[in-house]
Amino acid sequence: MRERVGVIGLGIMGKPMARNLLKAGVPVTVWNRTRAKAEELGKEGAAVAATPKALAERSDIVITMVTNSPDVEHVLFGADGALHGARTDQLFIDMSTISPVVTRSIAERCAAHGVHTLDAPVSGGEIGAIEARLSIMVGGDAAEVERGMPLFQAMGKTIVHVGPHGAGQVVKLANQIAVAINNLGVSEALVFAAAHSIDLERTRQVIAAGAGSSWAMQNYAPKILAGDFGPGFMVDLQQKDLRLVLEAGFERHLGLPGTALAHELYNTLQRDGGGREGNLALIKAIEQLAGVDARQKS
Amino acid sequence: MRERVGVIGLGIMGKPMARNLLKAGVPVTVWNRTRAKAEELGKEGAAVAATPKALAERSDIVITMVTNSPDVEHVLFGADGALHGARTDQLFIDMSTISPVVTRSIAERCAAHGVHTLDAPVSGGEIGAIEARLSIMVGGDAAEVERGMPLFQAMGKTIVHVGPHGAGQVVKLANQIAVAINNLGVSEALVFAAAHSIDLERTRQVIAAGAGSSWAMQNYAPKILAGDFGPGFMVDLQQKDLRLVLEAGFERHLGLPGTALAHELYNTLQRDGGGREGNLALIKAIEQLAGVDARQKS
Repeated sequence: MRERVGVIGLGIMGKPMARNLLKAGVPVTVWNRTRAKAEELGKEGAAVAATPKALAERSDIVITMVTNSPDVEHVLFGADGALHGARTDQLFIDMSTISPVVTRSIAERCAAHGVHTLDAPVSGGEIGAIEARLSIMVGGDAAEVERGMPLFQAMGKTIVHVGPHGAGQVVKLANQIAVAINNLGVSEALVFAAAHSIDLERTRQVIAAGAGSSWAMQNYAPKILAGDFGPGFMVDLQQKDLRLVLEAGFERHLGLPGTALAHELYNTLQRDGGGREGNLALIKAIEQLAGVDARQKS
Repeated sequence: MRERVGVIGLGIMGKPMARNLLKAGVPVTVWNRTRAKAEELGKEGAAVAATPKALAERSDIVITMVTNSPDVEHVLFGADGALHGARTDQLFIDMSTISPVVTRSIAERCAAHGVHTLDAPVSGGEIGAIEARLSIMVGGDAAEVERGMPLFQAMGKTIVHVGPHGAGQVVKLANQIAVAINNLGVSEALVFAAAHSIDLERTRQVIAAGAGSSWAMQNYAPKILAGDFGPGFMVDLQQKDLRLVLEAGFERHLGLPGTALAHELYNTLQRDGGGREGNLALIKAIEQLAGVDARQKS
């Protein structure tokens, strides 16, 4: 028998993910803070619940896809939260990117009510969500990972069980470290070439063909040179993730100087009103430090 | 008529490059500071010259592949340097990675003697040199680039004329910025995961499949996890290149904070005797800052 799935959070990522579950024939109930977004999926065959609690009452598995740690805690534990509608052996899967520490505390709190949990944050952006090609990093017990697998396969492509509760969040944050620092590499390489009045399209081509290449050099650099700074992945969300990294780092007193530097530079973009641009806008901070307009030179 | 080529500098890169010219049927004369390396190529069909000057006297095109700016100036302009054996319309191609400023001054000094120049630094490492798959970034006049092209094609695969004298060096340095900073991304991502006791092989796999990927994540991370810190590309040479970037940056008063950070971290590796390890050893500096042995946790 097919398990019934509830999806809480229908933003840029949650909506196409819920839609892919519907396409796979999964019985889906949805809830969203702004009800209009839920109604949209209602027209496509989802049931619309009035509260997270009501959603949990009519679901076997509850997926959360919201912005940050307090949002997950609110929709699970708040007034009318999902846990108030939960039953023993229900499975809660949080696919948001949140603090690994909060993830572990959520796991304990749910376990006390007999509810199982997985953390399963994703990478691949809106396009990956739409095309069901997300990378999904799963933390939790193997039996629950197996239970969630049909859902993960309806939404993603690369699904890796990376460890116990919280491990999915840790690997997602490690990924965000690499994303942000690779962006810094693209920014400084292009600005250096621009400062010497070198053609940036040729510079990008040569670097993308060799040992200096990165996903960012292949995918972001062409957009940068075209002056396209739309998200993609918003600076505000990149900053939220880097804060989670630095907080997790502070708890263990890790020195992560490249991550800290990227975070500081993104701060200046947010100050200048760039929080809703794409994270590739990091080059603007380097242009300012270097006194060079890389795109005008290109 | 095939032009006769002289190759000065038969190190890790220069030797296989000269060998590929020989394989392509080019008449090659070689000179090396340590004569034994020249004799080796002598057995394979190259003529061995006693001095750079003698080499230039019997060559139409002179290629230099040495360590740094002063080395190029020495083999060209020093006692018995190549310029003393040069003729009008001879072509000097410097394939070393050196200062763009020195490159432009060499171009002027040679031009005063009627000698043409190109800067044509390479990327792709020893394996790229051996397999004739180097990326070659060429600066100089189009006519000379065309003249050098048969030689470049015998040694490399991606050959891009990036601009006037010095432009090849600038693009090579931009590439080295990206190489060093991407390495920092790999290092901090893996150390962050290790600090949380997450399996690093799975972490690497997930990141390499998505937006955090880089040439370094795909090629260096597996070596790091295997504890293989051999060069590849030595820390000492990476530092030489980053110094060239920072010096060129200082001349223009550019702020390149990620590059400066990578350089500082590599300083600590050199202090600890790691200058002859591969540049992927950067993770050791981050391990020290984070108090984590990433490889023991993997």
